Amino acid sequence: MRIAELSRQSGVPVPTIKYYLRENLLPPGELTSPTQARYGERHVQRLRLIRALVDIARLPIATIREVLCEIDQPDPVLHYVLGRVMKSTLTPRGQVDPDRLTAAEQKVDEMIARRGWQVSAEAPARQAVAEVLATLAELGVGDLGDALDEYAEAAERIAEADLATVSTRENPEELVYAAVVGTIIGDRLHSGLRRLAHENASATRFALGAPPPPDC
Amino acid sequence: MRIAELSRQSGVPVPTIKYYLRENLLPPGELTSPTQARYGERHVQRLRLIRALVDIARLPIATIREVLCEIDQPDPVLHYVLGRVMKSTLTPRGQVDPDRLTAAEQKVDEMIARRGWQVSAEAPARQAVAEVLATLAELGVGDLGDALDEYAEAAERIAEADLATVSTRENPEELVYAAVVGTIIGDRLHSGLRRLAHENASATRFALGAPPPPDC
Repeated sequence: MRIAELSRQSGVPVPTIKYYLRENLLPPGELTSPTQARYGERHVQRLRLIRALVDIARLPIATIREVLCEIDQPDPVLHYVLGRVMKSTLTPRGQVDPDRLTAAEQKVDEMIARRGWQVSAEAPARQAVAEVLATLAELGVGDLGDALDEYAEAAERIAEADLATVSTRENPEELVYAAVVGTIIGDRLHSGLRRLAHENASATRFALGAPPPPDC
Repeated sequence: MRIAELSRQSGVPVPTIKYYLRENLLPPGELTSPTQARYGERHVQRLRLIRALVDIARLPIATIREVLCEIDQPDPVLHYVLGRVMKSTLTPRGQVDPDRLTAAEQKVDEMIARRGWQVSAEAPARQAVAEVLATLAELGVGDLGDALDEYAEAAERIAEADLATVSTRENPEELVYAAVVGTIIGDRLHSGLRRLAHENASATRFALGAPPPPDC
């Protein structure tokens, strides 16, 4: 198909497609003349993935390039691919009080030890979790009590379900694709489900007598 | 304290503080002369909250203004405040195939019915979850099998733990503050914990014989 048809099928405007081609996010089409190229189904699929990473995961273009490059590796080893993808998609905030961060890192290490999790000392997610805990403490809502362990147990169940889902794919390339997409796009699924569960828990737990006050 | 000291204590540069003052994110200080104002501890706290909403939740300034306004309401009713905050922080993507979206909405409705959740038909999170499911289907990784119910059950446990944590606060203003901050900033906590749990599950489940392939 021509670029106009590619644009129609993917919902991505032609100038944006040309930008992705220049940025090497999208592989070039097959040249049919010096100024025209033909595109196929894999271009449609790739554009949909790029749009999802832009719109839902809000990843910057440079990070998307790294993620796509990882997905395109031949003979991928899931564990290491995921490790590298996480490193590029979980950037530290780096604005937290060092003492609070040290205290939070210790809490995370203790939680990991209690659960017996096998995670590397340099896992970017370890730092990300510690930063969030330190930030919550800074904002005066850091006393989670036993909730951190509840959260970790819930994360464990989610991760088991995630792996069970992707493991149905036998081809390593497809497995890695499903795992990377599911991990990155899945964040928004879980935050949506958590909000629905909040609404339900709040409707169940709190009396709802008063009418809603005026909007902000 | 003067604005320079406020900048030092909060870690926010003076020009950024002035921008937040102009945008009405930060209440004005107490004027001590026509060109000088004095700031207090609540300004330090407010700046930390704004920075967390910018850096961690990546919310746009207009949305942060709405969230802060909700937090500042007197006599807040948690259920309705959270509902409105969710509406402003969960913006729909709006780029999904309508047929796929309809199919996904039905899946979400069925899941909500199976769990007996009390959630309003217009909950923005319902739409957000359906959009993610439709996007995953579009990307060819939409067959979650029983995982959606597993995910929902995990979300329920997280929401229960969230509410148990915030409910220890007796003052309604503090309760609403903790719930709003915990919901928005908590998303990053859960995505970090999920990645740690992934690493553990992947280390446990998959053989890790091959050395890591070269980086992208």
